[in-house]
Amino acid sequence: MADSRKASLNTATVRKQWALAQCIEGCARHGFAGIAPWRDMLAEMGVKHAARQIREAGLRVSGLCRGGMFPAGDAVGRAAALEDNRRAVDEAAAIGAECLVLVVGGLPEGSKDLVDARAQVRDGIAATLDYARQVPMPLAIEPLHPMYAADRACVNTLSEANDLCDALGPGLGIALDVYHVWWDPALAGEIARAGAERLLAFHLCDWLVPTRDLLLDRGMMGDGVIDLPLFRHQVEATGFDGLYEVEIFSAENWWTRDPDEVMRVIIERIETFV
Amino acid sequence: MADSRKASLNTATVRKQWALAQCIEGCARHGFAGIAPWRDMLAEMGVKHAARQIREAGLRVSGLCRGGMFPAGDAVGRAAALEDNRRAVDEAAAIGAECLVLVVGGLPEGSKDLVDARAQVRDGIAATLDYARQVPMPLAIEPLHPMYAADRACVNTLSEANDLCDALGPGLGIALDVYHVWWDPALAGEIARAGAERLLAFHLCDWLVPTRDLLLDRGMMGDGVIDLPLFRHQVEATGFDGLYEVEIFSAENWWTRDPDEVMRVIIERIETFV
Repeated sequence: MADSRKASLNTATVRKQWALAQCIEGCARHGFAGIAPWRDMLAEMGVKHAARQIREAGLRVSGLCRGGMFPAGDAVGRAAALEDNRRAVDEAAAIGAECLVLVVGGLPEGSKDLVDARAQVRDGIAATLDYARQVPMPLAIEPLHPMYAADRACVNTLSEANDLCDALGPGLGIALDVYHVWWDPALAGEIARAGAERLLAFHLCDWLVPTRDLLLDRGMMGDGVIDLPLFRHQVEATGFDGLYEVEIFSAENWWTRDPDEVMRVIIERIETFV
Repeated sequence: MADSRKASLNTATVRKQWALAQCIEGCARHGFAGIAPWRDMLAEMGVKHAARQIREAGLRVSGLCRGGMFPAGDAVGRAAALEDNRRAVDEAAAIGAECLVLVVGGLPEGSKDLVDARAQVRDGIAATLDYARQVPMPLAIEPLHPMYAADRACVNTLSEANDLCDALGPGLGIALDVYHVWWDPALAGEIARAGAERLLAFHLCDWLVPTRDLLLDRGMMGDGVIDLPLFRHQVEATGFDGLYEVEIFSAENWWTRDPDEVMRVIIERIETFV
C-alpha cells in the first residue's frame, strides 16, 4: 500500500549479520532510499569513510541513532552525557543525517524519582539544543514505550514529546516509532499537534502477540497487531514526506536470517502492510 | 512506613503454592486484613464454602479477580462475555467482595482496531453495570500497562478509566495497580481526579529492572523502582482508606518460595517500602 521506494534501513535490523559497509551496499542494491546507522556501527567503520560511502551510494540518512541518555546520579555523569551528545551531533552532521534521534534515558542508578529524571531530560535536551542549533542539526526526541520508562527513556508519550518541543523551541522535533506509541488513545490528536515541522522521522515495525522479550522481540510489519496504514495516513496527513525507517530488534527471528532476505521482506511488507 | 495491618493478599501471589483454603488460613495466621481471590481458585474451592471460610476468618475481600474481557469478534462472543460478567458479579456478591475488578480485554483475534475494541469495552461495562447496580456490586476498572493493550486490556491509563467513569456513572470505579501506571506523568492529577469515591482498590508490587518477562516477572515491594510511598500518599490524600492488596506474578522467584515466607516478606515490605 505504501511506496517502498521510501524505505530506510535502521541498521539495528540486521546488526547481527552486517557491518555498516554491508548495510550501505545492501541498501543501494535493494533500492532503499535511506539508511539510519547506529553510532557503534558508525564508529567501527569510521565516520569519514561511512559518510563518503553513504554519499556515493546516493542514500539519504533518515537519522543517527542515538543521542540522549541524559539523567545521571551526579554532575560528572550529567556532564559526560552532554559531552557525548555533542559528539553525536557532530557525527550526525558528518554523515548528513536528517536528525539525531534522542533516546532520552530513564532513572539514574538507585533513583525512583521519575519527576527528577524528566527534569534532567529537559535540561539535557536544552543544553544539547544550544549546540545543535549552531551546527545545525535537528534533534528528534523518540518517545519510548512505557515499559522502558525505568531503564531507557522516561519520555513515554507523544504528548510529553510535544510538550518538550513547546517548551524548548526551534531545532527540536520528534522521531515517531509506531512500536512505542500505537497503544496511546491520544495518538491521533498528538500527531496532528506535532505536525510536519516536528515529525522528523517515522519508524516502522510491528507489535507481536505474544511478545516474548521486552527488548528483542519486535515484529516485521504485518506480523503483529499495529494498524500501520492508519498511523501512516495520520502522519502523512500532516504533510510529513519523510522516509519509512524500519527498525526491528529480533534476536530469535530476523537477526538469524539471511540479511538479503530481510531486505526483500521489508520492501514487500511496506508495499502490502504499510 | 505503611500500616501492615491493612495488608490484603491477592491470591495470584501464591497461586503456585496454595489453594484458596490455604490462602484464607494463611491470611488469618499472618495478620492480613483481607484477601482477593481469583475466580478459578474460587471455583475450585466452591463459592459458598469459600464465602463461609472467609467470613469465619474475619477477612475483608478487597476484590474479586476478575471480570472484563469484553471485546470479541462477533455477537456470540460478546454475549458470552456479558453472561460471564454477570456470573462474576454474583460470585463477588456471594463472597462479600468490595468490588469486582475488570480487566477489560484487548483486541479480538485478528483485529487491529483499538478504537473499536475500546468502544466494545465501554458497551460491555455499561451492560454489566446495569446488572451490577441491582445487586449492588461496584465494578472496578483496572487500567493495565500499555504493554498489555493488545492481549489483556485496552484501557491503559488512569485517564481513560476516569473518562469511562465520567461517561457511565455511579457504581463504576477503579482498581489502581502501581505496576501498570507508575510511569504515567499524568498520574498524580488523575488520582486526584478519581478521588476516594472512585478508588475502589489499591494494588501493590514493584517494577523490576530488568524485567525478564512481560507477564510473570513482577517484583516484591522494595525490589524495584516504583516510588511506592509517593503513590500511596497520593492515593490516601484523596481520602482512600482501603487495603493494600499485594498482587505479584513471579514465575521464577516468589512462586518458587515457601508461601509462609512470602507472607512474612509482604508484611515486612509494607512496613519498610510502602
